[in-house]
Amino acid sequence: MNTFGNIYRLTSFGESHGPAIGGVIDGFPAGIPVDAGFVQACLDRRRPGQSDIVTARREADSVELLSGIFDGVSTGTPIGFLVRNSGHHSNDYSEIEHTFRPSHADFTYTSKYGLRDYRGGGRSSARETVARVVGGALAMQALNTMGIEIYAYTSRVGTVALENDYRLYDRLLIDTNPVRCPDKDKAQEMYGLIQRVKAQGDSVGGIVTGVIKGCPVGLGEPVFGKLHAMLGAAMLGINAAKGFDYGMGFDGLDMTGSQAVDEFFTGADGKVSTKSNYSGGIQGGISNGQDIYFRVAFKPVATLLRDVATVDDCGREAVLRARGRHDPCVLPRAVPVVEAMAAMTVLDAILLNRSARL
Amino acid sequence: MNTFGNIYRLTSFGESHGPAIGGVIDGFPAGIPVDAGFVQACLDRRRPGQSDIVTARREADSVELLSGIFDGVSTGTPIGFLVRNSGHHSNDYSEIEHTFRPSHADFTYTSKYGLRDYRGGGRSSARETVARVVGGALAMQALNTMGIEIYAYTSRVGTVALENDYRLYDRLLIDTNPVRCPDKDKAQEMYGLIQRVKAQGDSVGGIVTGVIKGCPVGLGEPVFGKLHAMLGAAMLGINAAKGFDYGMGFDGLDMTGSQAVDEFFTGADGKVSTKSNYSGGIQGGISNGQDIYFRVAFKPVATLLRDVATVDDCGREAVLRARGRHDPCVLPRAVPVVEAMAAMTVLDAILLNRSARL
Amino acid sequence: MNTFGNIYRLTSFGESHGPAIGGVIDGFPAGIPVDAGFVQACLDRRRPGQSDIVTARREADSVELLSGIFDGVSTGTPIGFLVRNSGHHSNDYSEIEHTFRPSHADFTYTSKYGLRDYRGGGRSSARETVARVVGGALAMQALNTMGIEIYAYTSRVGTVALENDYRLYDRLLIDTNPVRCPDKDKAQEMYGLIQRVKAQGDSVGGIVTGVIKGCPVGLGEPVFGKLHAMLGAAMLGINAAKGFDYGMGFDGLDMTGSQAVDEFFTGADGKVSTKSNYSGGIQGGISNGQDIYFRVAFKPVATLLRDVATVDDCGREAVLRARGRHDPCVLPRAVPVVEAMAAMTVLDAILLNRSARL
Amino acid sequence: MNTFGNIYRLTSFGESHGPAIGGVIDGFPAGIPVDAGFVQACLDRRRPGQSDIVTARREADSVELLSGIFDGVSTGTPIGFLVRNSGHHSNDYSEIEHTFRPSHADFTYTSKYGLRDYRGGGRSSARETVARVVGGALAMQALNTMGIEIYAYTSRVGTVALENDYRLYDRLLIDTNPVRCPDKDKAQEMYGLIQRVKAQGDSVGGIVTGVIKGCPVGLGEPVFGKLHAMLGAAMLGINAAKGFDYGMGFDGLDMTGSQAVDEFFTGADGKVSTKSNYSGGIQGGISNGQDIYFRVAFKPVATLLRDVATVDDCGREAVLRARGRHDPCVLPRAVPVVEAMAAMTVLDAILLNRSARL
Repeated sequence: MNTFGNIYRLTSFGESHGPAIGGVIDGFPAGIPVDAGFVQACLDRRRPGQSDIVTARREADSVELLSGIFDGVSTGTPIGFLVRNSGHHSNDYSEIEHTFRPSHADFTYTSKYGLRDYRGGGRSSARETVARVVGGALAMQALNTMGIEIYAYTSRVGTVALENDYRLYDRLLIDTNPVRCPDKDKAQEMYGLIQRVKAQGDSVGGIVTGVIKGCPVGLGEPVFGKLHAMLGAAMLGINAAKGFDYGMGFDGLDMTGSQAVDEFFTGADGKVSTKSNYSGGIQGGISNGQDIYFRVAFKPVATLLRDVATVDDCGREAVLRARGRHDPCVLPRAVPVVEAMAAMTVLDAILLNRSARL
Repeated sequence: MNTFGNIYRLTSFGESHGPAIGGVIDGFPAGIPVDAGFVQACLDRRRPGQSDIVTARREADSVELLSGIFDGVSTGTPIGFLVRNSGHHSNDYSEIEHTFRPSHADFTYTSKYGLRDYRGGGRSSARETVARVVGGALAMQALNTMGIEIYAYTSRVGTVALENDYRLYDRLLIDTNPVRCPDKDKAQEMYGLIQRVKAQGDSVGGIVTGVIKGCPVGLGEPVFGKLHAMLGAAMLGINAAKGFDYGMGFDGLDMTGSQAVDEFFTGADGKVSTKSNYSGGIQGGISNGQDIYFRVAFKPVATLLRDVATVDDCGREAVLRARGRHDPCVLPRAVPVVEAMAAMTVLDAILLNRSARL
Repeated sequence: MNTFGNIYRLTSFGESHGPAIGGVIDGFPAGIPVDAGFVQACLDRRRPGQSDIVTARREADSVELLSGIFDGVSTGTPIGFLVRNSGHHSNDYSEIEHTFRPSHADFTYTSKYGLRDYRGGGRSSARETVARVVGGALAMQALNTMGIEIYAYTSRVGTVALENDYRLYDRLLIDTNPVRCPDKDKAQEMYGLIQRVKAQGDSVGGIVTGVIKGCPVGLGEPVFGKLHAMLGAAMLGINAAKGFDYGMGFDGLDMTGSQAVDEFFTGADGKVSTKSNYSGGIQGGISNGQDIYFRVAFKPVATLLRDVATVDDCGREAVLRARGRHDPCVLPRAVPVVEAMAAMTVLDAILLNRSARL
Repeated sequence: MNTFGNIYRLTSFGESHGPAIGGVIDGFPAGIPVDAGFVQACLDRRRPGQSDIVTARREADSVELLSGIFDGVSTGTPIGFLVRNSGHHSNDYSEIEHTFRPSHADFTYTSKYGLRDYRGGGRSSARETVARVVGGALAMQALNTMGIEIYAYTSRVGTVALENDYRLYDRLLIDTNPVRCPDKDKAQEMYGLIQRVKAQGDSVGGIVTGVIKGCPVGLGEPVFGKLHAMLGAAMLGINAAKGFDYGMGFDGLDMTGSQAVDEFFTGADGKVSTKSNYSGGIQGGISNGQDIYFRVAFKPVATLLRDVATVDDCGREAVLRARGRHDPCVLPRAVPVVEAMAAMTVLDAILLNRSARL
């Protein structure tokens, strides 16, 4: 279950403080030019230490692509890759060898497997998302050849939320601030909030909004492989995710059916389109050619620079206080991960859709 | 992609107006006593025509179990099953042979496959969930032998929402009203709202809350098979679902990490437990033994007894008005489907978890 | 594990003496005209009672296609199907309720599952191949639209073997005799041998040779999905199969590399072809456009009308003697099953190959 | 399709002359002590250059285990691993950039993917089996804890074949000669044959026999996951494999059913056993506790140090003559690969079998 996808498949490996994070990408079509620099650029957006509101852990996160590419072009064979771990301080973690951090995976991993690599969260660390960003960066290069565009941004941090939908924001503004929010004023407000909770040794959650434009009609497999179910599973698999919705989602439930119906019309180009898009670009689980938009809720992470009550692995009461370098808010670094998961999902759906007709 | 699950697997088939809906359940463990009457009772809760706020379509929905059970006990071999379709009026649907119902799957199916069975929505009809209810009913019988309890209820219809969390409601009240809401007054209010939108030929959406109690610690597979990601995919695959969250979900995003941390303690029984349960019973993707609770958002369905603008399969403008028997609100009938999907997911996770240690 | 295939997938269910054998075919492309009469004709070739050298059990084996076909054309949705069991005498089997038939699956099923449906072998009965023949008959209709031809024949019964390779036999002669051997004299000899062992209450094994013509270049997925590995798994999954080889196979091992090399040349049509075909149409696991040919070894089945020593489910010594209607030689009825498995494998490989390039 | 297995899964990557061969092993149970030295020892048995009858290519083949093991014990998380390529001479291969080696995968890869990494066979090189040997070595360490023993040996080279079955040979003699044949005299004869064909720039094929002892009763999943079908697919996926059989196989077809029946008896230990073992330890696709034995046919490889006719990628006639270092007989180095595939298959079957009962 460390494999994501059906035809385009990422299998990842690696622990936070082991020798490396890496994986194998299988099912990447042959003949796609691969720009290793773009893959590295995607990793750089996910990297710790890129601003003062994310963890200060220092990792170069240099990716090495080990196979499946020949003379700069994909060959259709699996792409193995590797990112060496380097910036970890293993001695930071001895305290939690026998004590469970609350709201982390320490207790559940130990219960499930009988042991765990406790250093830095081991396999449950969000550091594993390095592998997903590599898988997404490759998928995006395939999607780009088809004119499909995918992006995400921070739309809420704690109580500070964007008020408009994605159509009113400029994608190019997303990376102009460390929060990755395309509204300059809101970004400033979010930034201030993160700084405040950070100063208190606390953390804050929020929402990432994702957008997929240019998706061809027909992606998604009924009944259990609906495009939004595939997207939802992809997003809910990201560390700290607590919820997913798309189109009208949870917030549109005060509308009636007649208010939320997306009437069809034929555009000047002869293409069938919809007047509104409450469906979020997916109808009956299949893309209809309109923009796909969705939201992912991320909890405030539980690594707190303050005392929390817990127990040890003998069940005895204990108190923990995290030290060192942690993210007060995962949202900015979650943005490239959301994009990566969306890209892998869409490429997988495209490949699955190839079998719809002979 | 008409298969759900990894080890416990349901493969379903059938169109709304074809001869039958059915499927194959594979991976059901041997030695479980199977009560066919319980399976039928679950189907009866999903059946149309059970109250005046759901579709009046008349289907007996009698299930026939065709294999995998011998002398009332499961044999470990696949369980084929069948529910004959009987109550349909195929002539209701000739109008939509060449015209796409807005916010339905007509356009996307035709685009993907080049043709569609247009009668009653064909494969995209929620009638397919008959198969899921059978799969869930069998899973529940296995789960019951382990003391796991699963239930769901309507917690919101349109603007009418329950104000408290699941712990304050009595499971036994859920089926005392046609809305399947465990709060008598709210149920009455919801019922009134559904009647009003029905009278207007309109529809209304809402939320189903699901609860899983008694889940053993350790279910869920990191990284891509997190228990909540499996649950989310299961729920988002239900017709009309637009969102999923669990634990603190979308509504808890105004809390900080220190407010939302679930501190551990050791109970009188020596079991490790948490003081609060913002995690929703899942940490790091793995069940921690606390209650699992989640929400599924359902849109107001788009079958409206009023005119809506659309196009036909030549792109020409058209107007449609649904006739006959339709659900003004899918929530009451979605409740048993949510339960079924949850039961299948949990049984699958239990079987997957068997390989965690040798 | 009752599902065969990756994209084109058959999930089967049913016991020999349960109500029905059936299954679901998923991944059948949309837009293929489906001739239900052809499906029935394939079943008729597998049916018991068709000659005096196969079991006399009487089954009509009428197939009912329940979904996925609309106006005679496949819709891309799953095709559920059903064949009712009718000709069984359940009282024939009470003797083996507690006693294990040697060289059958009675002991292993009981050990694995704790119980078994002992009537007629239950799930382990070759009657399950009814589902495969349906899956194969549909696949063949898709393959026919691409000019791919698949057939099989009995090439050995006991010690009586064809001496030449497939190229010297006329496909049209296969069904002119009950053995399904395209050499008239050998067929007569095989027929005599089967009659003799039948008279002695004994049984005899043999070989079915399969041929696939017109296969496009490029089918098969390296590394673990090599086309011959997929074919081999398909064939070895047939009841009573003991071996599989293709191309030069086991019999070509006395050749050296220089004798067995398939040199390339360019034909008059500009197509790259090979002068010889020791490779059996597959190189590096991928079809090269030449004929694919393979062999499947079937054991003499162990249902003997004579005494055999065994034990019961308490480990006590016992003697069994089969009674009634059994196949003295499975080869004639295995021929259509081999064809069906080959057809499903090839269609699956075609669909998988669609993702090789974007 | 670069993943092998269902629960215990190896995903491999790497080309012969790329930076590395490696993979990810998923589903390895937690709590198993892992001896990295044993893994390396298995690789050393597969390594080129170990004798004068295998290729002289020099590779250290040092494996690096990158994750999933903590303090010498498996953690249940995926095990990434890497073997750097080092000994290749890329300039040996420029000649085949545009010319297809007969009976190799050059033509089929180029046809399927539109391009290929032509250096040393790229992905189609048997060098990929490095990854399988790592996966097998880990599986064996899990199997050892259960008392399961797996081994293989060369039983035929060209026309020189062992005359007896596996029971008459001593496992400990296998590695006492470079052919890996447990019969000293036959080994000498095989060795002489290989030397002769090598001197002629030719090659020779043969058979590897595999044995699995101590397998618990109940492994294997009917209908399509029969243990021998899983084993067969595993073996046929090895480079140069042309056939697979088990138990009585192809060679037992001259027996009748009464000659080949495996009568049951209850041993002094109270265990049900069989008097003979023509079934090869598998009945109805499920292990019955007896020894499992099987054969794999390997062709004489087509890399010949003599002229062969072929065409280039424009279809023009050409002549190729391999140069440098190649295996005149793959059998000795195939032995550890056969063992590895068998070990992975059995561990996977054990894990699958965990779901047979609740």
